[in-house]
Amino acid sequence: MGPMTESGSPADPGLVGEGDEPTAHGYITDKDRYLARLKRIEGQARGIHRMVDEEQYCIDILTQVSALTKALESVALGLLDDHLKHCVVDAARMGGPEADAKVKEASDAIARLVRS
Amino acid sequence: MGPMTESGSPADPGLVGEGDEPTAHGYITDKDRYLARLKRIEGQARGIHRMVDEEQYCIDILTQVSALTKALESVALGLLDDHLKHCVVDAARMGGPEADAKVKEASDAIARLVRS
Amino acid sequence: MGPMTESGSPADPGLVGEGDEPTAHGYITDKDRYLARLKRIEGQARGIHRMVDEEQYCIDILTQVSALTKALESVALGLLDDHLKHCVVDAARMGGPEADAKVKEASDAIARLVRS
Amino acid sequence: MGPMTESGSPADPGLVGEGDEPTAHGYITDKDRYLARLKRIEGQARGIHRMVDEEQYCIDILTQVSALTKALESVALGLLDDHLKHCVVDAARMGGPEADAKVKEASDAIARLVRS
Repeated sequence: MGPMTESGSPADPGLVGEGDEPTAHGYITDKDRYLARLKRIEGQARGIHRMVDEEQYCIDILTQVSALTKALESVALGLLDDHLKHCVVDAARMGGPEADAKVKEASDAIARLVRS
Repeated sequence: MGPMTESGSPADPGLVGEGDEPTAHGYITDKDRYLARLKRIEGQARGIHRMVDEEQYCIDILTQVSALTKALESVALGLLDDHLKHCVVDAARMGGPEADAKVKEASDAIARLVRS
Repeated sequence: MGPMTESGSPADPGLVGEGDEPTAHGYITDKDRYLARLKRIEGQARGIHRMVDEEQYCIDILTQVSALTKALESVALGLLDDHLKHCVVDAARMGGPEADAKVKEASDAIARLVRS
Repeated sequence: MGPMTESGSPADPGLVGEGDEPTAHGYITDKDRYLARLKRIEGQARGIHRMVDEEQYCIDILTQVSALTKALESVALGLLDDHLKHCVVDAARMGGPEADAKVKEASDAIARLVRS
């Protein structure tokens, strides 16, 4: 059981941030960065709405849609990485059906991303 | 030249909507529908921002990101279809280097969409 | 009708290659290159089969699957560009319901590509 | 440490199949199914080569390319799920830098899939 004691017990609360701060899902470290990126994404969506309203050139609108899709994809990959690092790894340490359920849930989310 | 007179001369202004309305790029027929869809997309982006701010569950956020990506993809495919129907078809009728340029531009936009 | 006579009549057989060679669909110019790329793709598929059979490392297999997907995507974008350049442009010149049908068919193929 | 003893120690060899069989990477249970799917994928690639060689209709070829891409994507998602279930979960149980490295490697593979 050496590796477990070296790397923290499976129930180590420090990993999931269940202290007195409000966070529950582990991606708090980058929260401000995510929020800034999502603000930009909102702005991009608003910009595309305006381009259609002003009847700008179709290809230019499509270029903006592709850029927005890539920005979203990048946020999704970041969130997924955080999720694997925290929730899935923690659940794996706990073991049991919860670990299997977390992996299945993550795989389903990955499939949705790959197919969207 | 029978088919051309039956289907309208290549310079038929009815196809590109160059009347006295401000439209220049031919997707005016569905403009209200596009604007409504883009408003919803803006709302979805705002909703994802809020979910991250409230630190909702990662997988639920990813589900919303996939839904938003699909909604954007659907708008892009609609715009592209309109573009082929109007700009590319009109340019093809005109012929010459303009037609080649329009096809290249459309192919490049398709490649960006497929890769995003 | 100036532009039409300058750029060739819509029924110009030179555009679709309906000479005495067997080609009917216009992408003949790059045929050897497509065949070579598809041979490589077949080889990549065979390589992935072998990697699974030899139980090589999962991530290495996934890297090869991504490379194969990209190679296929690139062939698809090339074929689509050829299709727009030849079939869609020729149909647009002919005009009438055939032109609409060709654009719809192309848009449907693009949607399948974007979603796959 | 209760959860660990209930769900098996992190070094439980039964999970990674390190018995006397040749398997090293944990996706052995479905190996025959993967091999059959990859054989079909090879056949699909060969069929697309033949379609181009026979100069079949572009759109029909694109339909087959989309089908092949979807088949590959499905194999990739299966392999990734197996990888998370086995390698990543096992590494997480071990803990330490190895667990982090496995998650990073999985995230990178997911990013390549999403972007391909």
